[in-house]
Amino acid sequence: MRTVSWKPDGPAVRLIDQRKLPAEVTPIDLDTPEAVAEAIRDMAVRGAPAIGAAAAYALALAAATSQSKDVAGLWLELQTAADLLRAARPTAVNLGWCLDRMLRTAQAILASGLDEVKAALLAEAEKIADEDVAVNQAIGRFGAALLPPNATVIHHCNTGALATVDWGTALGVIRTAHESGQGIYVLVDETRPRLQGARLTAWELQQYGIPFEIIVDGAAGYFLQRGPVAAALVGADRVAANGDVANKIGTYMLALAARDNQVPFYVAVPTTSIDLSVPAGEAIPIELRPPGEVLELAQAGQPVSPPGSHAQNPAFDITPYRLVTAFITEVGVIRPPFETGLSDAVQRAGTG
Amino acid sequence: MRTVSWKPDGPAVRLIDQRKLPAEVTPIDLDTPEAVAEAIRDMAVRGAPAIGAAAAYALALAAATSQSKDVAGLWLELQTAADLLRAARPTAVNLGWCLDRMLRTAQAILASGLDEVKAALLAEAEKIADEDVAVNQAIGRFGAALLPPNATVIHHCNTGALATVDWGTALGVIRTAHESGQGIYVLVDETRPRLQGARLTAWELQQYGIPFEIIVDGAAGYFLQRGPVAAALVGADRVAANGDVANKIGTYMLALAARDNQVPFYVAVPTTSIDLSVPAGEAIPIELRPPGEVLELAQAGQPVSPPGSHAQNPAFDITPYRLVTAFITEVGVIRPPFETGLSDAVQRAGTG
Repeated sequence: MRTVSWKPDGPAVRLIDQRKLPAEVTPIDLDTPEAVAEAIRDMAVRGAPAIGAAAAYALALAAATSQSKDVAGLWLELQTAADLLRAARPTAVNLGWCLDRMLRTAQAILASGLDEVKAALLAEAEKIADEDVAVNQAIGRFGAALLPPNATVIHHCNTGALATVDWGTALGVIRTAHESGQGIYVLVDETRPRLQGARLTAWELQQYGIPFEIIVDGAAGYFLQRGPVAAALVGADRVAANGDVANKIGTYMLALAARDNQVPFYVAVPTTSIDLSVPAGEAIPIELRPPGEVLELAQAGQPVSPPGSHAQNPAFDITPYRLVTAFITEVGVIRPPFETGLSDAVQRAGTG
Repeated sequence: MRTVSWKPDGPAVRLIDQRKLPAEVTPIDLDTPEAVAEAIRDMAVRGAPAIGAAAAYALALAAATSQSKDVAGLWLELQTAADLLRAARPTAVNLGWCLDRMLRTAQAILASGLDEVKAALLAEAEKIADEDVAVNQAIGRFGAALLPPNATVIHHCNTGALATVDWGTALGVIRTAHESGQGIYVLVDETRPRLQGARLTAWELQQYGIPFEIIVDGAAGYFLQRGPVAAALVGADRVAANGDVANKIGTYMLALAARDNQVPFYVAVPTTSIDLSVPAGEAIPIELRPPGEVLELAQAGQPVSPPGSHAQNPAFDITPYRLVTAFITEVGVIRPPFETGLSDAVQRAGTG
C-alpha cells in the first residue's frame, strides 16, 4: 500500500493518516484540494517527497472535480489550488517542485481541451508517484553500498515509505541494506516533538523485520561516543546550492555529534529536494509550528508542562554543509565540493 | 520549603515528590532508610545535591529509628543503610560523598554512646543541607557575574531548588541574575525522557517570575545558531579530575552546539560533585534506566511507540572537558587548565 495514491474508484486522494500511527493504520480519502492542503498542514501526510506527491494528486483532483466549462476557467482553478497547497508548509521544496511540474503539464496541453488536461494531470501525478518509488530504490542501492556489513546506524525522524510514496530515502537505504542481507541495526531517534521516530520509523522497521532500538534525541551523542556506529543517516526537506541541509529539528545537533566522533553523516535525498535557487541555508524558510506540540505530547494531548508555559517550536533546522559527509541521490553519491556536485546531479537527473 | 528536610515532629525524611510535579506539589514523609533509597531510585527526589542530602538524612533516620542496644550494632546498621543508599543511583558522586561524611561523623563519636551518635548524625545532616544552600548561593553570585545584562541562556534538565536542598546550581545562577535585576530569559530544554525541563524547571521559573520558553532538546542548536544566546548553563552529576562532565543525557550534544556557535558552556557545580579519584569521564559509571521511560511518556504511561519496541535509556552522558568553557563553583570560576583548577578548588573548599 502506498502512502499517497489515487483512490481507485473515484476522484479522491488516498493517504495513510500518519497522526494515528502506530495505534491504527487508517487510510483517508480526501475529495477536495482544500482537504489535501489541510492534511499537509496538520501532518496527516508528511515527509518532503510524500507531500510533493500528495500536492500533485491534489492538482489532478482539482482538475477532475472542476466545474469549469472552459480551459481558461480550469487553469485559474489549478493556479488557485496550487497557491493554497504551496502555502501549506514552507520548508520542503518538493511541494513547490511537484506543483510547478503539474502546472507546466497542464499549460502544455491546455489547447487540447478540458478532458485532455484532466487526463494528463492524473497521468502526471501517477508518474510523479511512480518516479518517487524508483528514485528511492536507486538511493537505497547507492546508500547501502556505503555501509559495512552489520552496520549500526543512527536515524533521525521518519524517512521511510511513510515519508515518501514508497520505499523511503534514508530509511530506504536501511531497507535496501537489510534486504540485501548485509545486516543492519538501527538506533531510532524518537524525534520530538511529534515523535516521528518512535511512532513511524519504529512501526516501519517492525513491518520490515529490521532490528532497532529507540533512543531519545539527546542520547545520540552518547551512542556515537561509545560506538561503533557506522553512519548517521537522515533525509532532507531542502538542500541549498552550497549543501546546507534543512531537515527535521535536531538534525544539526546529530550532525555535530557524528562529526565529533568521526562518524559519516549521510543525507539521502532525491534531486528534487535540491534547490539550486537558494544559495545557502539561511535563505530557507523554517516553519514555526504550534507550541502545543512541545507543551503537550503530540497525539495524546497529555500536558507535560505547567499551565501557562510558553514554547518555541521550529520544525526544522539548518545543518551546515561542512558537517555533511556525502549526499546520496538517485544519480549517485555526492561528496565535497558540493556546489558543483549538487548542480551536476540535478542536471543529470533532469530535475532542475 | 526545602526539597529535602527533616520532618519537624518525627523521625522521617520529608521530600517534595518530583514525579507529581507540575500537576501537584506533594510532600512525602519517609520513615525508613529503605524508603528513602527507593525514592532516590524512582526519582521522587533527584538532582545530585538533593539526593546527597536525602541520603544524609536517611542515615540520621537509620540512627534515630535504630533498635540497637549498643554502638557496635548501630554502626553495623549505619553501614548497611549506607550500602543500600549508595547503590540507589550510580552516577552522581554527591551521594557517596554525603554518606562517607555521615559515616565519618558517626565513627568519630561512636565511643560517646548511642544518643550522642544519633544527635550528631542529625546535626550533620542538617549541616549538609544548610551548606548546600549556602554553596548554591555562592555559585549563583559567581555565575551571575559572568552573564551580560538581559542575557538569553539555554538550560538543560533541572538544576534548581528541586535538584538541590534549595536555590539550585545552574538554575541558582539564573535566579541570582534575575533577583539582581540584570535581566535574564531562559530557553528551557524539555529534557527527554523524564522531562525535567518541561516539568520541573518550567515550574520553578514560573514560581520565581523568570521569563522562559520551553524547547525540545533537538532545537537547542537552532537557537544557538540564530542567537544571540549568552550562555548554555548546566549542572553536573560528577566531574572527573580532568574536567570531563557526567550530566543528564543530552548535555554533550548541547555542549557541541554551544561550541560550534562560540557560545560559552558553563557547568555550575558544588565542589562536592568533583571526583578527583576518577581521572576521566570514561571511568564514570553511566546509569541505564528502564526503557519504559522512552517508550512511554514518563508520568503518563501513554505509549509513544508500537507495542514490542525496545529502547535504550542511558540517563547521563559524558561531555569532554574540551567543550567546557568554565566551571562555576562555590569557591569561584575555574577556567582551563581544569586539572589543576579543579583540584585547587576542592582543596580550598575543604571538600576533598
